[in-house]
Amino acid sequence: MALNKTEKLYSGKAKDIYATEDADLVIMHFRDDTSAFDGIRKEQLAEKGVINNSINAFVMTYLADKGIPVHFQKKLSDTDSLVRRLTMIPVESVVRNFAAGSLVKRLGLTEGLPLKPSTYELFVKNDELHDPMVNDSLVVTLNMASQAQLDEMKRLSLEVNSHLVELFAKASMTLVDFKLEFGVAGDGTLCLGDEFSPDGCRIWDSATGEKMDKDRFRQNLGQVVDYYKEVAGRLGVDLNQGPNPD
Amino acid sequence: MALNKTEKLYSGKAKDIYATEDADLVIMHFRDDTSAFDGIRKEQLAEKGVINNSINAFVMTYLADKGIPVHFQKKLSDTDSLVRRLTMIPVESVVRNFAAGSLVKRLGLTEGLPLKPSTYELFVKNDELHDPMVNDSLVVTLNMASQAQLDEMKRLSLEVNSHLVELFAKASMTLVDFKLEFGVAGDGTLCLGDEFSPDGCRIWDSATGEKMDKDRFRQNLGQVVDYYKEVAGRLGVDLNQGPNPD
Ligand SMILES: Nc1ncnc2c1ncn2[C@@H]1O[C@H](COP(=O)(O)OP(=O)(O)O)[C@@H](O)[C@H]1O
Ligand SMILES: Nc1ncnc2c1ncn2[C@@H]1O[C@H](COP(=O)(O)OP(=O)(O)O)[C@@H](O)[C@H]1O
Ligand SMILES: [Mg+2]
Ligand SMILES: [Mg+2]
Repeated sequence: MALNKTEKLYSGKAKDIYATEDADLVIMHFRDDTSAFDGIRKEQLAEKGVINNSINAFVMTYLADKGIPVHFQKKLSDTDSLVRRLTMIPVESVVRNFAAGSLVKRLGLTEGLPLKPSTYELFVKNDELHDPMVNDSLVVTLNMASQAQLDEMKRLSLEVNSHLVELFAKASMTLVDFKLEFGVAGDGTLCLGDEFSPDGCRIWDSATGEKMDKDRFRQNLGQVVDYYKEVAGRLGVDLNQGPNPD
Repeated sequence: MALNKTEKLYSGKAKDIYATEDADLVIMHFRDDTSAFDGIRKEQLAEKGVINNSINAFVMTYLADKGIPVHFQKKLSDTDSLVRRLTMIPVESVVRNFAAGSLVKRLGLTEGLPLKPSTYELFVKNDELHDPMVNDSLVVTLNMASQAQLDEMKRLSLEVNSHLVELFAKASMTLVDFKLEFGVAGDGTLCLGDEFSPDGCRIWDSATGEKMDKDRFRQNLGQVVDYYKEVAGRLGVDLNQGPNPD
């Protein structure tokens, strides 16, 4: 039986979440909205929703095949995917292979500095506070997650990194860094939630160093969607593919 | 044999460090200089150097008696103490029992919120970068300390906290938070270095909640040195006591 959107549960900066007839499943709708600087700058980028939904479906399926517990169930349409309903942990996990973005500014590093071993950071998901950095101690004391959940989030994030560094390298792209969100499913499983797309990671062309991710938007480099399409193409994501078969 | 200052090795925001004839020992000279906002605001507060040298000697001796490895050897004069020469780890350890200061701003908490269990944070010691927060992963990858050193710093910091919470509580004071610095001695021992004084911690009167620490300076509450003296008095620090006997 095909599931239908019932109530809109949440409308975020780039996606909407809808309830379905199944209490354990929600529909994630990818919009074209693109935001930066904690939501201060907002634009519509035509086709972005479609592309990100496809890249996310591809990457989540790839990670599920590698044994990572993911919320993703299947693609329902160009812009929609069915996912397990999670109680989100309000902390973002960031893995970095090279210095870029906020790390460069905060620590005075040079963009592109290789980080070995890859680093892992936690940030509270809070636009008004500009996603402040936290650590295990603060997260546990402030009851945002348990130490066991944090340990699992770190383990899974670094495992995701190993798999994705390889995936992108084979497609001539360098995975510089990325942000993940985790949540707890109805049966208590900690799952990778949200999305993996060029909106939440940095990808550089391995040969030329060109930016292929949301930094093109943040830094006004232009051709944002063209580069997102290029990422999809190199990964072998079929952008014309319809929903997964039932 | 009494040791003499030979060369001035370092002059910081509040203290000077001098070499001595013994390569393993340095003299820490406490000045009256008081700074806030990463050194942007500076003032001289008469007697502060003398008071902090005495409070530090008292607290360091107390911690050494509890088994904490400290650099402190002995008080040499009103303003000078002899300490083991350390190669400092460029990361500050912060323990908090109640929310205050930067944590309140960064995470939008209410000042005075009890933190249970006490939290532990790391900040890079760098005034220009405004002491950015880091975590174990960043510190290790950027070669600022080893994971073993970080584990030891955390363990010692929380142990120091237990001892000092008790010490201050007995003297009708609430130890809100404090900053510690660690370093490695010539024989490889990780030691508590730098100072423990009202310049680097928050202390509230247990009965009235009055601030008795450097926040009086930061927030222009006045009577800074009077309150430092009150802290000394309550702890039983003898401000008229000369150097330790040889
Ligand atoms: N499986 C899930 N169940 C419930 N909520 C989810 C799930 N996956 C992601 N979310 C949440 O849905 C929202 C996705 O929309 P988004 O536009 O990214 O929002 P935001 O602006 O909050 O980042 C996020 O807040 C995310 O935490
Ligand atoms: N035992 C020690 N050996 C060498 N250096 C030390 C020792 N203890 C503290 N230090 C360093 O000496 C300096 C103390 O002076 P201070 O005025 O606090 O400087 P700062 O402005 O750098 O904080 C600090 O940089 C501190 O890291
Ligand atoms: Mg989001
Ligand atoms: Mg100092």
